[in-house]
Amino acid sequence: MASLDGDNAGETIEFLSLEEVSRRLDPARTVVVSDSHVHRLHGAAFSSFPAALLPEGEAAKSWDVLKSLFLRFIELGVDRTWTVFALGGGSASDIAGFAAHLWMRGIGYSSAPTTLLAMVDAGLGGKNGIDFGGYKNVLGSFQRPKAVYCDMETLRTLPGDQFASGMAEAVKHGIIDGEGYFGFLESLAANFDHRAADPTILRRIVAESQRIKLGIVDSDPRETGRRRVLNLGHSFGHGIEVEAGIPHGYAVSLGIGIACAFSVFRKAMAEDRLRRILALLSSLGLPIRHEALAKSGFRSRVAQTLLMDKKRSSSMLRFVLPRDIGDVDVVQVDIGELIDFFEHGGFLEIMEGTMAEKTR
Amino acid sequence: MASLDGDNAGETIEFLSLEEVSRRLDPARTVVVSDSHVHRLHGAAFSSFPAALLPEGEAAKSWDVLKSLFLRFIELGVDRTWTVFALGGGSASDIAGFAAHLWMRGIGYSSAPTTLLAMVDAGLGGKNGIDFGGYKNVLGSFQRPKAVYCDMETLRTLPGDQFASGMAEAVKHGIIDGEGYFGFLESLAANFDHRAADPTILRRIVAESQRIKLGIVDSDPRETGRRRVLNLGHSFGHGIEVEAGIPHGYAVSLGIGIACAFSVFRKAMAEDRLRRILALLSSLGLPIRHEALAKSGFRSRVAQTLLMDKKRSSSMLRFVLPRDIGDVDVVQVDIGELIDFFEHGGFLEIMEGTMAEKTR
Repeated sequence: MASLDGDNAGETIEFLSLEEVSRRLDPARTVVVSDSHVHRLHGAAFSSFPAALLPEGEAAKSWDVLKSLFLRFIELGVDRTWTVFALGGGSASDIAGFAAHLWMRGIGYSSAPTTLLAMVDAGLGGKNGIDFGGYKNVLGSFQRPKAVYCDMETLRTLPGDQFASGMAEAVKHGIIDGEGYFGFLESLAANFDHRAADPTILRRIVAESQRIKLGIVDSDPRETGRRRVLNLGHSFGHGIEVEAGIPHGYAVSLGIGIACAFSVFRKAMAEDRLRRILALLSSLGLPIRHEALAKSGFRSRVAQTLLMDKKRSSSMLRFVLPRDIGDVDVVQVDIGELIDFFEHGGFLEIMEGTMAEKTR
Repeated sequence: MASLDGDNAGETIEFLSLEEVSRRLDPARTVVVSDSHVHRLHGAAFSSFPAALLPEGEAAKSWDVLKSLFLRFIELGVDRTWTVFALGGGSASDIAGFAAHLWMRGIGYSSAPTTLLAMVDAGLGGKNGIDFGGYKNVLGSFQRPKAVYCDMETLRTLPGDQFASGMAEAVKHGIIDGEGYFGFLESLAANFDHRAADPTILRRIVAESQRIKLGIVDSDPRETGRRRVLNLGHSFGHGIEVEAGIPHGYAVSLGIGIACAFSVFRKAMAEDRLRRILALLSSLGLPIRHEALAKSGFRSRVAQTLLMDKKRSSSMLRFVLPRDIGDVDVVQVDIGELIDFFEHGGFLEIMEGTMAEKTR
């Protein structure tokens, strides 16, 4: 698809306190897009900036919220000299980046992610968007931020499930990249406490995940090839997230497990690799089981979402198949085969069998 | 602004009948976006294609219509293998191209413009968008179509005012490009009848305007420099269009006149050039006067729209200043000076004086 959108310069990443960030921005020409919870927690540094407040979480990524954001831009007189600045998690950057891209055909955009998920994944690489008609991210674009500012201290205020949610993407990066980072994640104590963690450990997680993600994005910004591996765990993850209403990272954790089980089923992955991956997810407080997955009605609904999947092309589906730690590929799989495997719960047996093996 | 959007390949232009066009497209994976009037006139060739029907004219370019278009995409199961095909005028291609760019972060898009305006201007070069909160095109993106198919026969069904509206953009191209094309337009008889015109004449108008426009767009697809000259007549034109509710080309015709009068006022353009330009516009059935412009309240409202103009940057405004036929530049002008000139009606005197000179 031919496009006019400019160059492909990646985002600058800087590790700065929010106070330092606020000094980089012009309060007369910057609108802070944040949710009320994050704004209460971290907005102090931006008290002299106009704000546009969003509902919390995925609820921000809606058609109606996008409209209210644009109405706020009009109220503030936002023009091309302004910057949209997202302060918050992946939902804030998803909708703020999208709004900045569409307003007057594109104005400045930068962000300070305040969640691990946004720092290592959602807030990087320029994919933005909103949900529509029950489909996740079905409206969106590619537009990389100018700068992403990371203040490690914001991570300490995260509830455990939200921190773990980000770690699911870190594990994904570890599986894609190889033993080095994956082994480092394994070396973190079980039930790692991010509130008390050594700042150098937190920063290593963020920096390594960013290195892996941006390395891949830079090589394929429009996701026409290699970038697709970053969807590991997301084909089923998206559907599970929507249908079960669980945090994104929890759904990705389950999705990674299912993708690995499918790979074991196809004899592409050795069982002990699946065991290590499930053990790591579990030790980081991430789910590798969910009661809804035991219900065939639930599995059918999740399978339905695959049929509308953006990665689908006729009867084949691009699926990210992990073969080993450091060996992940995008392959075409028959939709029928994949849905059969999932709907009949074949993954449950493989995952349970693998974990039983461990405890034996 | 860094962006991930792909390459910058220009659109392919083909002169084909709509029947031939329909044979190029897959009725199972193409949604025809059109308004009911155009669909009734020209939709026969696409009777086996699913359609999404829009309100006629600028009313199509609204937030709510965009939503209904996306709901229709869901109904049809539009995925990345589909093409959005705009059949109609500039409004249809503006919203259809925008929708195609946002759906699943960009799916295929091509068009068959059925108005002169869309063939020579609006449907080319990838600028798309909708109006919002009373501002024209304030939401949009840059995304060039894959192909633009031109069937000259569709032009014969246009009412006179709509054909003339397209000719305003052709005159704009003539002023930018120089004597060759401008002189050709002058050579067309006064009150040129497009319904009876020799097809080679129609095709020459379309092809020359396309050559001029695409030559400029290809050199500056993101409108960071030279492409801005294509906004000649549009700074005031947009405001007049919205406030007076007249066709786009009529407003552009008035906007060209005002821009030239401002140039004469600044002694950048000779009066006889203004006279030739006004005479050409007038001979093509385009307005060079409008009663509303005589009212200071109306002028104030139009001036207000300049303050929200996408091309504004602090107290200076980028203005397309025509100096001569074939000599048009983008200059920074003081907003105060420009608004003073406009609000006090300085252009009226200059334009009337020039035309009186002619008839004397």
